[in-house]
Formats: sequence, C-alpha cells, structure tokens
Amino acid sequence: MSFEKLDTLGRKLEALEHALAILGADEATHMAVGGGEKRAEAMANLAGMYHAQATAPQIADWINDARNQDLSQDQKLALDEFERTYVNATCLPTEFVERRTAATMRSEQLWRELRARGDWDSFLPALEGVVALVREEAALRSAATGLSPYDALMDQYDPGNRTAEIDGVFADLKSFLKDFVPTALEVQHERLSRRPRRKVNGPVPIERQRELGLAAMRAVGFDFTHGSLAVSHHPFCGGVPTDVRMTTRYRTDEFLSSLMGVLHETGHALYEQGLPKAWSHWPLGKARGMGMHESQSLFVEMQLARSPEFWEFMLPLVHQHLGEDTIAGWDIEDVLNEVNFVERGYIRVDADEVTYPLHVILRYELEQELVSGKLEASQIPEAWDARMTEYLGISTINDPKDGPMQDVHWPGGAFGYFPSYTLGAMIAAQLAAAMEKDLPDMREQMRKGDFSAINQWRADRVWSEASRYSTPELITRATGEPLNADHFKAHLKRRYGA
Amino acid sequence: MSFEKLDTLGRKLEALEHALAILGADEATHMAVGGGEKRAEAMANLAGMYHAQATAPQIADWINDARNQDLSQDQKLALDEFERTYVNATCLPTEFVERRTAATMRSEQLWRELRARGDWDSFLPALEGVVALVREEAALRSAATGLSPYDALMDQYDPGNRTAEIDGVFADLKSFLKDFVPTALEVQHERLSRRPRRKVNGPVPIERQRELGLAAMRAVGFDFTHGSLAVSHHPFCGGVPTDVRMTTRYRTDEFLSSLMGVLHETGHALYEQGLPKAWSHWPLGKARGMGMHESQSLFVEMQLARSPEFWEFMLPLVHQHLGEDTIAGWDIEDVLNEVNFVERGYIRVDADEVTYPLHVILRYELEQELVSGKLEASQIPEAWDARMTEYLGISTINDPKDGPMQDVHWPGGAFGYFPSYTLGAMIAAQLAAAMEKDLPDMREQMRKGDFSAINQWRADRVWSEASRYSTPELITRATGEPLNADHFKAHLKRRYGA
Repeated sequence: MSFEKLDTLGRKLEALEHALAILGADEATHMAVGGGEKRAEAMANLAGMYHAQATAPQIADWINDARNQDLSQDQKLALDEFERTYVNATCLPTEFVERRTAATMRSEQLWRELRARGDWDSFLPALEGVVALVREEAALRSAATGLSPYDALMDQYDPGNRTAEIDGVFADLKSFLKDFVPTALEVQHERLSRRPRRKVNGPVPIERQRELGLAAMRAVGFDFTHGSLAVSHHPFCGGVPTDVRMTTRYRTDEFLSSLMGVLHETGHALYEQGLPKAWSHWPLGKARGMGMHESQSLFVEMQLARSPEFWEFMLPLVHQHLGEDTIAGWDIEDVLNEVNFVERGYIRVDADEVTYPLHVILRYELEQELVSGKLEASQIPEAWDARMTEYLGISTINDPKDGPMQDVHWPGGAFGYFPSYTLGAMIAAQLAAAMEKDLPDMREQMRKGDFSAINQWRADRVWSEASRYSTPELITRATGEPLNADHFKAHLKRRYGA
Repeated sequence: MSFEKLDTLGRKLEALEHALAILGADEATHMAVGGGEKRAEAMANLAGMYHAQATAPQIADWINDARNQDLSQDQKLALDEFERTYVNATCLPTEFVERRTAATMRSEQLWRELRARGDWDSFLPALEGVVALVREEAALRSAATGLSPYDALMDQYDPGNRTAEIDGVFADLKSFLKDFVPTALEVQHERLSRRPRRKVNGPVPIERQRELGLAAMRAVGFDFTHGSLAVSHHPFCGGVPTDVRMTTRYRTDEFLSSLMGVLHETGHALYEQGLPKAWSHWPLGKARGMGMHESQSLFVEMQLARSPEFWEFMLPLVHQHLGEDTIAGWDIEDVLNEVNFVERGYIRVDADEVTYPLHVILRYELEQELVSGKLEASQIPEAWDARMTEYLGISTINDPKDGPMQDVHWPGGAFGYFPSYTLGAMIAAQLAAAMEKDLPDMREQMRKGDFSAINQWRADRVWSEASRYSTPELITRATGEPLNADHFKAHLKRRYGA
C-alpha cells in the first residue's frame, strides 16, 4: 500500500503546485497592484506546506516499502522519480534552506536596486555570500547524489547532464562559433547591402497583434481548450498542463518581437499540453527538465518560425491580421532579415541565435570555476571581460550593468541553470534533423502551415515520455545519437553561412 | 504561547483561503474550458487541507491554554472567534461530513438536470435525502451550541440571529407587505399611465458599459488598487480583501441590469476592502456574516443607487459614457421607472425590492417546518403554492420549475441562509436611517456623487468592526436600536407609496 500512499501524496502536492502555478500567473496578469503583499505571504505559506509534505520522513519508508510491492513498469519508473525528487528535496537541512532563502532574497533585492546603477562594488559582498552558500549547497548535493559538486547542481535542472559530456560539446561549439560569428556577420553585411532592412509602418494596434498571435498559436498546434494568452510585463509560459497560461507583451512600433515571443512560449506550452495526463500527479509525469523544455520552445521559435518555409504560410496571415499597409511590399526575405538579424552585443537575452551560445558558454565556464573555488566573486569582472573579448570581441570591463550584473541567476543562487539554454538550442536542431529523416516532406508541410505530423513526431518522442528517461537518454532515444553540436552547427551554416 | 500558535494557524488558513478564493474567481473568469476537472480536483484537495488544519485536535488545547494567557482586548475577542469557528468546524463527525457532501453534490447535480424539465417527482427522493441529513446536521449543531436546531443552522450564516427575534420582525413585515404590494402596483400603474416607460436605443456596446460600470464603482468608493472588475456568467464578488474580484455580465439591448448589478457587488466589495487589515488572518477579521454582507450590497444598490438623488450625478455619467442617443430624452424619473419597477413574479432572484421579502419569508417559514419535521419534502409543492397564493396572489402548483425547484439552496443543503437576504434589506434601511441623523446633508452629498462621509460612517460602524460583535449587537451598536422592520417599511412607503 506504500505506492498508494505516494500516489495520494502526489495528488496533494499537485494541488499545491496547481495553486502556486495559477496564483503566480494571476499575479503577473490580473492581480490588483495592492494585492502583492498578501499574495506573497499566501504563496510563501503554500510553498511551506508543499515543502513540509514533500519532505516528510515517512516518505522514505514508503519508497523503500514500495520497492517490495508488485508494481507495473510505469509504477516502477514513477517510484524512481519519487525517490529522485525526494532526495533532491531532503538533501539540504532545513537550517541551510532557510539561510540560503534569506540570503538569495536579500541578494536579489539588492541586485534589482544596484544593477540599474551598475554598482558592482556595493553588490559584491552579497554575491560573495551567495557564492559561499552555493559551494555549501553543491557539497551537500554532491554528498547526497554521489555526483561532482557542479554536476549535482546541474542535475536539478536536467537530470543526467554531466560536465564530462557537456564540456566537450560546448568546446566544439565554441571553437566553431569563434570563427563563424565573423563569417555570419560578413554574409549578412553583403546580403543587406543588396537588400536593405525595411521598416514597419506603425503604429500596429495591440488588438490586431493579439489576433495575429492567437492565429500563430493555433497554426502551430496550441490547444485553446487547455490554455490562453494574456499580457504581462515579462512574457512567460506558466499555469498547469490542463490550463497553460501564456503571456506576451506588445510594442506598437513593430509586431515581430511579440509574435516571435508568442511562438517561443507556444513551444513551451505544447510540451506541457502534450504531457501524459494520467501521470500528472507523479514526478514522472512532469516535463523532463530545463534543457529539454527550452529545446521545445526553440524548436518552434528557431527550427520552425525563423525559417523561410514557415513564412510562406505566415506572411499572408500577417497581411490578413495587420492589413497590407503595415509591411507593404515586404517579402519573406525581408522578414528573415529582421528575425534572423545577427549582432555582437553585451546582453544575453537580446542575443541572436548565432551569438547566444557564446554568452552561455562564458557563464558555464565561469560558474564551474566559482563553484570549485578556482574563481572568486571579486574576480568575475576581469574574467568576464577576458572571455567577452575573446569570444565576441567586445569589452565589458567598465560596464558591469551590461556585464556580470545583467542576469538574475547568480544573484538568485541559480548555478547550473545557464547551460540549459544552449543545450536546448542544440537539442532542437538535433531533433529537427532526426525528424527530417522520418518526415522527408517536413519542410513542405511547414510551407502549408500543417504541423500535425511534426507535432505528432515530437509528441511520440518527447512530450509523452515526460520524465521516463534522463535528459541524455531521452535525446539519444528521440534522435538516435547522443547530444552533439553537429546538427546545430549545420543549422547555423545553412541559415547564416555563405 | 498558545495564542501565537493560533495566530500562526490563522496565517496558514488564510493562505489556503486566499488560494481557494483566487482559484474560484479565476475559474469563473479566465480558466480555459478544459481546465475544470483538474481545477476541481486541486480545489477539493486544498479544501481538504484547510479542513484538516482547521479541525486539528490540538487546537482545542491551544484555545483553552490561551484563556490563561495575558491577552489584549483584541486578542481576547480573536480567541472567542477562534473558538466559535473551531466549534462550528468540528461539531460534525467526519463520517457525517463525507456523507452529507456526497449527498448534496449528487442532489445539486440532479437538480441542475431536472430543474429545466420541472421534474419534481424525479427530484423528490434526492431532496428527501438532503432534508433528512439537514435534520441530522441541525441536531448535531444544536447539541454543540446549545441553540435550537434551526437557530444552530442559521447561526453559521449570521452569528447571533435567532428565530425568537426574527419571527416577529418578519411577521410584521409580511403583514405590511400583503397590503402594500397592491398599493405599490396601483401607484405605479397610475404613474406609468401618465409617463410611460421608455426604451433604450440599443445596441449598447459592451466596452462602453464596462467603462460606465468602472466609473460608477469609482464614484461610490471602490479601491482599484485592491480590486478589479471582470466578466462571468453569474456575477459575484470574490477574491480577497486586498484583491477583490468583482464580475458582471453584459447584454447589449440595455445597460441598467449590468450597472445595477455592478453597484450591488460594489457594496459587497467595499465591506471586504474596509475590513481591518491587521486581523485578516483571524476569524475576527472576517466580515460578520451573510445578512450583514447583504446589507452592504443592498445599501449601495437600494439605499443609494435606486434613489432619485443618486441619479442626479449618475445620469450625466451615463450620457458621457454611452452617448446621448442611448437614452435620448430620458429624465431621472424614466430611470427610476426602470430600476424601481414592481411586479408580482414567480422567481426570487428576479424580484423587485417590494416583493422580494415575501419570497424569502415563504422560504424561511417552510424551511423551519422542514427542519422541525412539521413538513415533509413531499408536501413542499402544496405548501409553497398555498403561501405564494396568499402572499403574492400567484399559483405555482403546476410549475415546480418556477416554484420550489427554482433555488439551489435546498438541493445544496443550505438551510438557514435564506433569511439573510431580507435581513440585509432591513439592516440597510435601518443603517441609512441612522446615518441620516448623523449626516443630515447625506442626500445632498449623494446628489453630488460624494460618498466619502457616507462611506466613512459605514467604515466606522460596520466595516472596521469585522466580527467583533454578533450580528444583532452590531446592528444595535451601529443604529442605536435592535433590528426592526420600521425603517424598511418607511423606505418602501417613501419610494413606492402614494
């Protein structure tokens, strides 16, 4: 009966997750401005209830007892994931969790205040405190999992990912990109000198952009009986699989940033909507991890929505919803000039598909050194500048705001998360390459705006598998080969090369 | 330290209440249609956690121990309410609660299906089951509280209300209304023959009605930093005091039903927004009860918004938001002809201010007899018809759909709730009369659309008192006299009399 106890626990935890997810989405979309304080208090209390129930000591006994039960294959897999999440949730002493939560909350608040001024010196002591705690956490997680300290951190976000594999893949990609970025910029310069960038005839009314976004979501397969689109300051994909809450934001001088953002979030949404419903209250039923999730958003955004094939059906939709005047005279090539524009820049979140991985690899390298103690927080600005200069040819030494102070991850104590972004981009390219072997007319279908076979392929190989396999195993099973940079490199060469 | 334990418990319960309130409002306004099943499951689980935490046996010890602590006056009052709610929550055995929940859920579902067909005979067995359970519940609550069975039911909705007082007040009102309804209808007939009813020039665009509703809410004092207005099929006022979620619905052939509904719900919202913030996690900090809550909505709707004074400032707002054409040529008298139209009808929720109390008194009388066993469920149609004929001169014997099958309360097991509606109307009139003594220029302020002194008076005497006193004591303290029908009768005579 122990498995049944875990099953019941799963339903209770799912209820609290449901509440936290909807309250979180609601806060960003519909909450009255004065409701924030009580909302934060309520969510902290609910999170506390979640933690107390998820870490109860008797769960260890239930897991052990269930090992002796006669379980189905799915139940056995579910048990493994119950155990993995239980170990992850209990390997940090409560005293440590409280200390870390207090420190990272203070550090994040301080960061919000000091980042605008680029005041690195005032922020440094807080960051040093966070780094010390992260080293402590990595040691605790390492002891509980038997992984190396950095791997133990990374394993929270993508179970199974190891530096032993990723180091090599990232080194390969980095060495390619250091040469390829200048090439792509040259090719682009040459192309734009023949066909200059065009301007959008704004203003583009928000209501029309919304209708266009909804049409794009519908086209790529978003299920509106299980989700919706709202507006928030920072776009996200939240909610629960049966009621996915997607958001976007609009500017009225152009429409592509909102539209591409909507398509990115739709990629996340399709993964959530495609998870196996019967497992929704088990850890086994959750999406595999951050890298895999990002691969699904980037599959839609990069593999589909920034391709010439996609715009064959999309451009008429734009004309239909925004009117012919908004992008009068634009051809597919003009859209691609905008959405695939490459530029060396300081800011990761603004980076294009080609330069983005270099921003990530820089952080991946630095945070490994920070966790191991090879690098101290005080040395970050110089180390950051050296790598930005080497990888992208731009210096940030006098601009911490647009250098090491630009991301919330480190101030918030989230070490081991950054690689997910670029792993996602590589997985997406690898999935697309494998898919094209199975669906030779995939690009023809994209031209027609028919994503049913494309989505079915992903549903079978990724969405319906949920957390059945580790991230590397899921990649290998879905694509027939282990994660590597080749397909992503080929994708970049095809799109941005000579 | 026991009071501190109760205080901490209060914060946890408040978090769960917060989640349930926002999830409930969200379900009616923003949830994707396919999200209902998981939402229901999540809310049932959260309600289960609430119940488990609110009824934990150690709470009895904390309450007893806290009696010996050195508490402030507010803390002593808080302790009394902790105890009252604990007794209410624990006086029913879990086995009974489960049995009742299952029976009333089935009965409500059946009612939804059979009501449309008016199939009383098929519904009767379910209702008989509910009545049997209600008698059992009344006996259990009576044993726990020392009240009579029906008083024990009613006490859940309005603590302190007793049939010993209410019987007399309702008898007085009933005997008045039996004569007054024909008078009011005659007066109205005479008035309308001189000045016939006018028509709205529809369609009235929803976006404009929304702006008008928001303007009306703002005018009567709704705080938009702590609340918002959305659309739902059934209008309600939900959410939490720091983030009140009000809804309305729109029809496009006229605007008054939505506007008056918005003003009614705003009355509820002002009460919630005016509750003492420091007590929000104590039962003491909640609104007093259903009758008192209805008095606040009806104060805004009936005492303010259906008066000629109110329309002196409101009519220009209507013209401004809907355009002059929508009610071209209308004067205040024409608006009042619509919003104060009196009509004998079958349906309680459609009834006007004059006939409504007779619908309620009929139910109040029947449900007392049902609880005591003097009446059986099978006898309801005849008893209902006899009273409808006597009180309103209309028969329902061949129309159970518009007779005893019209309300959800009895199918849902909510006995003792109905009187709250008419108590609310009487309390509102009594508050208005007392207020006018303190604020002789109250009507002048209404003409100007200035509700600051009117709201301050209610904030001081009702909102800020929260659950400090029983309902009858709160009424007496606020108005200087016990609840009686005189002020309501005077109000009706002034508005509808010769």
